[in-house]
Amino acid sequence: MSSVKPHATHPDPAELDALGAALFRPMGVAGIYARTALYEDIVERLARLLPQPRAARAESLHFPPVMSRSELERSGYLKSFPNLLGCVCTLHGSESEIHAAAELHESGGDWTAALEAADLVLSPAACYPVYPLVARGGSRVPAEGLAFDVAAECFRHEPSRSLSRLQSFRMREFVRIGSAAQVMAFREQWMQRAEGLARLLGLPSTLEVATDPFFGRVGQVMAVSQRQQSLKFELLIPCESGAPPTACMSFNYHREHFAEIWDLRDAAGELVHTACVAFGMDRLTVALFYTHGANVATWPSAVRRALAI
Amino acid sequence: MSSVKPHATHPDPAELDALGAALFRPMGVAGIYARTALYEDIVERLARLLPQPRAARAESLHFPPVMSRSELERSGYLKSFPNLLGCVCTLHGSESEIHAAAELHESGGDWTAALEAADLVLSPAACYPVYPLVARGGSRVPAEGLAFDVAAECFRHEPSRSLSRLQSFRMREFVRIGSAAQVMAFREQWMQRAEGLARLLGLPSTLEVATDPFFGRVGQVMAVSQRQQSLKFELLIPCESGAPPTACMSFNYHREHFAEIWDLRDAAGELVHTACVAFGMDRLTVALFYTHGANVATWPSAVRRALAI
Repeated sequence: MSSVKPHATHPDPAELDALGAALFRPMGVAGIYARTALYEDIVERLARLLPQPRAARAESLHFPPVMSRSELERSGYLKSFPNLLGCVCTLHGSESEIHAAAELHESGGDWTAALEAADLVLSPAACYPVYPLVARGGSRVPAEGLAFDVAAECFRHEPSRSLSRLQSFRMREFVRIGSAAQVMAFREQWMQRAEGLARLLGLPSTLEVATDPFFGRVGQVMAVSQRQQSLKFELLIPCESGAPPTACMSFNYHREHFAEIWDLRDAAGELVHTACVAFGMDRLTVALFYTHGANVATWPSAVRRALAI
Repeated sequence: MSSVKPHATHPDPAELDALGAALFRPMGVAGIYARTALYEDIVERLARLLPQPRAARAESLHFPPVMSRSELERSGYLKSFPNLLGCVCTLHGSESEIHAAAELHESGGDWTAALEAADLVLSPAACYPVYPLVARGGSRVPAEGLAFDVAAECFRHEPSRSLSRLQSFRMREFVRIGSAAQVMAFREQWMQRAEGLARLLGLPSTLEVATDPFFGRVGQVMAVSQRQQSLKFELLIPCESGAPPTACMSFNYHREHFAEIWDLRDAAGELVHTACVAFGMDRLTVALFYTHGANVATWPSAVRRALAI
């Protein structure tokens, strides 16, 4: 283990601009940042602001940043976003095999060739564990449907210098499971609330039909179909100068996609529908600082009131 | 994608006892659980209780659940705990290569053979990113030393059914960097405070000299040396019936270990010393529920007062 200065061999791939330097400290990898107290305070205030209008009956769950690999595979993630998935890999085998791999690193070799996939992946969104969790319960979805309020630290492998495209970020999602009418009404209601929420926070926003960043040429076909059916809307908010506005919330109708995979049915035995409303907690926080500045004391009084500052 | 019921093919490897069922929902992998609102509320109250006695000058940082792989490698983690490390692996290569791997899964093959290590690992403890972060700053450690208050979701690959040994868990750490006298005084002070904190929370505790779970036969030698030098103390608290008490806090003196790796020096050019005090936020929360029961309303009034319930 040498004592070479890290900045001599590790030119920081994640330099921060003036605003970024107030919110984050670099950690040597693009899109991975330590969050300062100034920044975390606003993330927490935003989290407390969000739940107020949620359905009282929603079950609230905080997921860890990893989830079952087989459950994410079954959800179809590899078909849509194989390039973004982070899989947890570990050294398996006997004591001498593990030692041999670790020692390969000491001798300057590539120890990672010995890694094998564990039964875990980094969650790419907060709602994926919800559907298998409901399926595990085993009962039929009741007439009034089900509602969840979930949160997780999520991961997508897309290194970028943009502060509104982190690799590791917090998502909060409201998930609705029930009839097509129930989940469409839920999504519609939240699209209206979202624009009100952006106004309350002093954030300029536009609501647009959108598509997921499906991978490759096949993905472009999936995106056309998604757009034609208006399955995804996004609330776009400016997060950095000279760049188009960023999707800070999304409103997604999955039709029977997850119900079919997880065999989620109503009392009559029909497949249910699902929808989710997703809040990019880090993007919303970056948008707040980008719009109102690094000094929270000078934010508009209405915004400060909304966040109970 | 078949619609087989998940509980038909996935017998839950992580069944929960009565207390566990009030705190967690299973996610199909041992040691990985969704956290209920009841549980999260106590985690958050505990987090607010902790910072009160910290040094006012400590820099507070919240790290994401992943950190630079090369920085953790350089920290010596592979020498000590190669079996516990979770490395982030992704599909690299061209569009057709990534598609070929993803399609292998559809046809029932092992797509994970195509995974390659990214430049990230899951952080195994909250303090590892602190030392390279200080090094990146490039300046000498001031005479009064440095103090950090950091938090992260951590990961260690040790599947277990024990609720006090999760694979994914929250750690809070107070880190001190300075002279040997400064960091030893810091650790001593926290060992006393910790016993007071346990009393305040109504938790029976014992403070003991301890060792890290170093890997393999070589690790046993490292553990003997660590114990002889009293480098690690743990505060043990009962977390489950029929099992020995669990380390819920630890008090670690690293001597010049991290300073040497990251070239951290004082104004005179001497290597500094470091120490950290670690709080297992999930273990402490499980200990509270194990000791006082699942019904927070019936917890002792002194404990409720301490947690501002």
